Order: sequence, then C-alpha cells, then structure tokens
Amino acid sequence: MSLSKLPYKGTRDFFPTEMRKRDFIFNRMKKIAELHGYEAYDGPMVEEVELYLAKSGEELINEQIYSFIDRGERKVAIRPEMTPTLARMVAQVHREFPKPLRWYAIPNLMRYEKPQKGRLREHWQFNCDIFGAPEGLGEIEILQVASGLLKSFGATEEHFEILLNDRRVVDAVFKQLLRLNDEQSHKLYKVIDRAKKVSQEALDKMISEIISLDSVKAHFKEYLALTTISQLKDFLARHGLKDAASGFLVFAEKLAPAGLSRCVVYDPTIVRGLDYYTGVVFEIFDKSPENRRAICGGGAYGNLLQIFNEPALGGVGFGLGDVTLTDFLETHKLLPEFKSQNCDVLISYLEESLEPQAFELAQKLRAQDIKTELYFGEAKPKKVFQYAEKKGHKSVTIIGSDEIKNGSFEFKRMRDQEKAVVTSHQFSELKEFLELNHG
Amino acid sequence: MSLSKLPYKGTRDFFPTEMRKRDFIFNRMKKIAELHGYEAYDGPMVEEVELYLAKSGEELINEQIYSFIDRGERKVAIRPEMTPTLARMVAQVHREFPKPLRWYAIPNLMRYEKPQKGRLREHWQFNCDIFGAPEGLGEIEILQVASGLLKSFGATEEHFEILLNDRRVVDAVFKQLLRLNDEQSHKLYKVIDRAKKVSQEALDKMISEIISLDSVKAHFKEYLALTTISQLKDFLARHGLKDAASGFLVFAEKLAPAGLSRCVVYDPTIVRGLDYYTGVVFEIFDKSPENRRAICGGGAYGNLLQIFNEPALGGVGFGLGDVTLTDFLETHKLLPEFKSQNCDVLISYLEESLEPQAFELAQKLRAQDIKTELYFGEAKPKKVFQYAEKKGHKSVTIIGSDEIKNGSFEFKRMRDQEKAVVTSHQFSELKEFLELNHG
Repeated sequence: MSLSKLPYKGTRDFFPTEMRKRDFIFNRMKKIAELHGYEAYDGPMVEEVELYLAKSGEELINEQIYSFIDRGERKVAIRPEMTPTLARMVAQVHREFPKPLRWYAIPNLMRYEKPQKGRLREHWQFNCDIFGAPEGLGEIEILQVASGLLKSFGATEEHFEILLNDRRVVDAVFKQLLRLNDEQSHKLYKVIDRAKKVSQEALDKMISEIISLDSVKAHFKEYLALTTISQLKDFLARHGLKDAASGFLVFAEKLAPAGLSRCVVYDPTIVRGLDYYTGVVFEIFDKSPENRRAICGGGAYGNLLQIFNEPALGGVGFGLGDVTLTDFLETHKLLPEFKSQNCDVLISYLEESLEPQAFELAQKLRAQDIKTELYFGEAKPKKVFQYAEKKGHKSVTIIGSDEIKNGSFEFKRMRDQEKAVVTSHQFSELKEFLELNHG
Repeated sequence: MSLSKLPYKGTRDFFPTEMRKRDFIFNRMKKIAELHGYEAYDGPMVEEVELYLAKSGEELINEQIYSFIDRGERKVAIRPEMTPTLARMVAQVHREFPKPLRWYAIPNLMRYEKPQKGRLREHWQFNCDIFGAPEGLGEIEILQVASGLLKSFGATEEHFEILLNDRRVVDAVFKQLLRLNDEQSHKLYKVIDRAKKVSQEALDKMISEIISLDSVKAHFKEYLALTTISQLKDFLARHGLKDAASGFLVFAEKLAPAGLSRCVVYDPTIVRGLDYYTGVVFEIFDKSPENRRAICGGGAYGNLLQIFNEPALGGVGFGLGDVTLTDFLETHKLLPEFKSQNCDVLISYLEESLEPQAFELAQKLRAQDIKTELYFGEAKPKKVFQYAEKKGHKSVTIIGSDEIKNGSFEFKRMRDQEKAVVTSHQFSELKEFLELNHG
C-alpha cells in the first residue's frame, strides 16, 4: 500500500500557481496595513491552552481547538485565532510603546471545522488591531483598513457592505428597555446571532422561550426591524436610551467624513456572538447572492488585557480570512491570472562545453537583479522557446561559441519576438529592453 | 493568579522590531530564490504522522515530533520539516510540470527540542529544491542559491565554508574498501556523524567497537584524515574506488567554473545522519570560533517519491533555519538596525474640528502609495515631532485652518528639517521630496 498524496483533511497544498495567488493577496494586505501606519508582528503557532480558556468562547475551546499535551505535560493548542496571542504580546510591552499601537499579522490558524465552502481547517487570517486610540477614531480607521483592502482589488459598495452594530446599544436595549436579567440577555444574544439563519417562525419561537410579555416582545421586534442609523437614533431617543449608546453615536457621526457612509449599513443582528467585544461590532458581507457570507468580522474591545492583570487598554480590530476573501474576489472576478512564473531571462547553450559560460552569465544577470533561469543541457532552440513560452518567461538567450568570443548575447523578447544584442557590461540596456522594475 | 505573558517554551514573539528583521531576512530569501528561477510553494502546517514515519529518521519520530490524535482519530503531527510535504506534493503533480522543478518555501516548523543557542522548538526554514536536473548540475545550482543568500548579506568565504561529501563515496569506502556489512555500515554512519563532537580517544573507542581488524581501522582513519577533493581523488584511485564515486567527481569538476571552489571544503565526516540522501551532501558552517555551527544542510536524494509508488525522480535541496542564520549574520555584524517604523508622513491637526480633513488628506496620500500615519487628537506640535522622531517617520505635516483654506500643506522632512509646500494635486512632488520609491 502506498501513502496518500493528498493533504490532511481541510488543509491545502499551495502549488506555485496557487502560491502566486496567495502572495499577491498577502502582499496587498501588507501594503494596505503599512499605508495606514500598521506594523507587522507575529507570535508562535502553538500557545498554552489556558490562554484560550481565559479568553475565547466555549464552543471554540471544547470542539474546535487543536489541543494536545506536549512531552513536558503542558496543555497546548495550535492557534485557532490570533487575538489571544496579540493580547498576550500587547500585555508584555504596551508600557514601552507610544499609543496608539497599530499592529497587523497574517498568521496561519487551525480550527477543527467540517470543511465546506468558505471554511477550512487551516486558513490564514489578516488581523489588524489598534490599541489606545481615542473614542470612535480607532473604529473609523479599522473600517478604512478593512474596506481599503477590498477596494484595492477593485471592489466597491456594489460588491460588499459593512454591517454595523454596537454592543453598548444591544446592552442598553436588553437591560434598560427589555429589562432582561443576565441569563436572559445571554440567551437572547445567541438568538440574535442566529436571527438571519432561521425562519421567522423559528425566530418567534426562540424569542418566546426567553421573553413572555407581549409588550417586551414588541419592543424587541421593533429593535430587530431597524435598518438604518437614523432609525436607530429615533428608536434610542423614543425609549430614553440615547445616553447609554452615546459612544456609538459619536462614532456614527464620523462615518460620512471618513468616506465610509456609502458602504455602511446598520444591522441590529450583528453582535459577534458571546465574544470579547464591548463597543462597535461589524461584519463585512459579500453582496452577491451566490456568495452571501461574512468576509471579515471585528469590533472594539475594552478588557482584553484584564486576564494578564494589566490596566484596561481599549482596542479595535478585525480578522479577515484568506479563504472567504478569495471566494469573494473570485465571485466578482477581481483577481488576475497567476499561471506563469515569469522569469526575466531563460539562458540556454548550444554545446555542453559552454555550460560553465552559461552558469557565469546567469550569475552576472542575477547580480543585476535579473531573474534568470538556466536551461540545463544542450539546447534544441525550438524546445527552449516552447519551454520559455510554457513558463511565461520574458526573454530567451541561447549561447553559442560566437557569443562567448564576442562577449555579447542576443536576447529575444517572447512577447513580440523583438531582439536585442547586449554585451556583458551593458545589462542596464537589457533591463530597459525587458522593462524591468524590480525596485 | 494571572496568566503568563510569555510565549510557549522554545517559541518566539515577534514584536515589530523583530518582525522587521525577520521580514528583511525572508524577503532576501525570496529574492535569491526567484533570481535563480525558483517558484514559491507551501503546504499545511499539519500532516498525517504516517508521512513522517515513511520518510524520516527514527529519532525525529520518536522524540522530536509534535504528534497527536485529532477528533476524527487521525494521527497527525505539526510539520517538523518540509521535505516530506514537498515529496508528497511533487508526487501529486510532477507529471504535469516540465523538468527541472525548482521550488522554494519558508515554512514554520516545530520540533520538541531542548531550547538552546541556535535551537528552538519553533523556527522558520528556507527550503530550496530542484527535481529532475541532470547529474551534478542541480547540486551546483543549489550550492549557488545557498551561498548566494549568505553573500547577499555581505558574507564571504572568510565568514562561512561549505563542507562537502558524497554518500556514494562513503558507501564505496564502507562496503568495498572496509567490507562492512549493513549493520556495521549503519553503526559507522552514526560514529562519523559524531566524529567532530567527541575526543580522539572516544572516537577510537567507538571505531574499535565496530571494526576489529587493524588494517581495516587504518583504512578508515586514512579516509577520515582527507581534507581536500584532490586528496580524496588520490585516495579513491589508490583503492580502486574511482568508478563507484564517479558521480561525485563529475560534480566536483563543475565547482570551479561555477565560482564555488573558494568556499568549498571536502569533509569526510559530513554524511547527514541516516537521512534520505543518496549523493552529494553538504553543510554550510560559520567559520567564527564563537558561533561554530551548521547554518544550512542539504544534498541529493534519489528515492523520495518511492513511498508514493511513483517512479524515481532525483532531487537536490537544502534547509536553512532562521535562528542559525540570524546568529550567523549577527556574529559577523551583517544586519542593519531595525528600530524604526519609517512611515512616509505623519499627519496631525491643530483643532479637533479639522479631524475630517486630516482623515481625508491621509486617504489621499495613501491612494498615492504614501505610507501615512494619522496622529489622533489635537496636536501639540512639539509632541508631534517627538513622536515622529521616536517612530522614525520621514516627514510631518500639521493641519491648521489656513492649510485647509489654501488647499496646500507644509511637510517637514525629519532628516534635515527641510520644508516643502505641496498642494493636494501635486503629491508626486511630495514623493520626490521624500525620495519615495515603493515600486
């Protein structure tokens, strides 16, 4: 019996074509983060389990985490998300850094999921977080980074929308308006989280199990029917809740000047589960009916450092997975093709005796930042050009004894079959001929 | 009790300064690989254990691997090395690709090591491999890539040396000259592997336990005393072993024309353990007495695809870890400093009412690929400049109501305190002023 050639369930092999696509997307993430002043960080792929127990939701720990006991009897887990690691690192150093801290990472993460469209067991996730920004400003900037990434691929508000809510609003509605106790609140959070995934009937049934009074139910349904920030404002004013949600209203005022109002929608069902958020929460959704799912989720959190006995330092952040992002970009045809390798030069030689000269020329070109592949073995020109065509290389040179004698080489540009003769000391001419700008 | 802020034993947190260093090094790896025509690939961080059982040495499986049983009763492991994944991937697709295949990756790997200088539990490893190259040529190119990486940091043959040997040579010496059986060969491989780490006395004792005849012992010691390729040639000729090691001699002829002879040293103790190598093997060593250790190891292997019932496809490759490479570069002072973040522009505003305009200007600059950090809150100019200084930003602009009225902004260059006034439509002038070339 032979071994399986397939990757472990729910994970991916990135062959060169897939890897070029991944690099293209990751480079875009890095660029957008750095354009906004965010600095890269990373942590270990394994953490001690107690870090996740202290922070994450129950479901993640019990069912979705890859945990095991190491040879030193430590309980450890492969990171299922980056935020606990981020919180641990920020807790270590936040005193040394001027605020706000703006950090980003693109870690590989693992969750024990049932593999399906948009969900795999291993994925990469673009994480951006800002700590210590003034009220409302970190939220605006984080939304700019997340939507800026999508826009950098050519996406517009026709393709995606940012669904917004605020945990302070939800808390005010639950506690002050509906007068629920903690247990009821907790249950109703779970109901809200599922509101869009179930039928109206099922929703009514779930609500009735928590709320019995018809007047209270009516208030809750009134809340669930809100679709714009101005409707929400009226609703809050009508029920005397404006003060409790003032943070959200301050933030909401900043959306229009920041150019975000066109892609933002108020959605009372966005609560980000039972997670650690304490303020603004959001999800970015693909608007295509064929790929109607969240691409990105995030929000503001006030107490992440608490578990390390550190003083409160508010933060805002998001996570955006590579699988859902790629689905989004492919659904809207926003990705180029990544078929060809695209070296600058393919060098071949007519006789084996010229092999040392071919090696030498290759090294000279590389010293000039020219990406050069050496075609091994005596060259049959037709085969060499077919090979260059297949690999998408920009140009070909074939070395014969004349070229060595003269110290000059003919480069044929694959795109248009144009030729240029270049001597060893004039490789800048070759770079112009090939329009190279490797930076 | 509060949670630990430290990373799991033997792993690292990469704060922005460390991450800039890591990115600098990884970008260099990518650049060198791509200059030589190598294409990026990646695989999952977890594989099924049987993949490692089929390929790796016993020690790795038994003691050094992070293995566990997943929730579906599969035996899996965090990848301790990349080669098994590479072999699995190549076995999947080698028929579709023109040869040679040139692939590289920089995966994060985990081994259960006792953390010490140069050895951690999690590290990143630059892997380059070439499959299907003609005899000797893949070996030469792989050595060029590995040494080319070190040279790209400014290292020379004063800093490192490539210690070379060939499994075919060792096999010929063991089987034909010493006439050892398989069990003795196996043991003597282990002795050779430790030869440089133990005293002459201990070495003699280990040899005596395997070889009893004095004449055989003398041959083995004669072999161990070889220090150059020409000595080896004489030795092989003297003992009638030239044919058995002809592949190595073909390869050795190519070292000088490829510019490699100055950094290459023949070393009879390099055998790369009981690993999967079948031809040339090598290790790159730091020559500094303070950091005398292998930075990189690799070699040629003929049968990696066998475990997948695929026909033989010869390969050559190396692995080069980020921890040992960083130690090498730091020992020889070959790394720059990575202290500062280095944004192009820091924007601040004198009055809170100008916040929307500051957001707007920031977005305009970013659209021109200018890395822009927004300083939140009303600015005290002195504090703003101190902040820009601390973060290593290139320039500062402070927005007042006059700037907004005139639509022009004054940028102060931090390096020399020079100023430039730029209107919103002339950001190309700003890029020149800041000497930006983000590519």
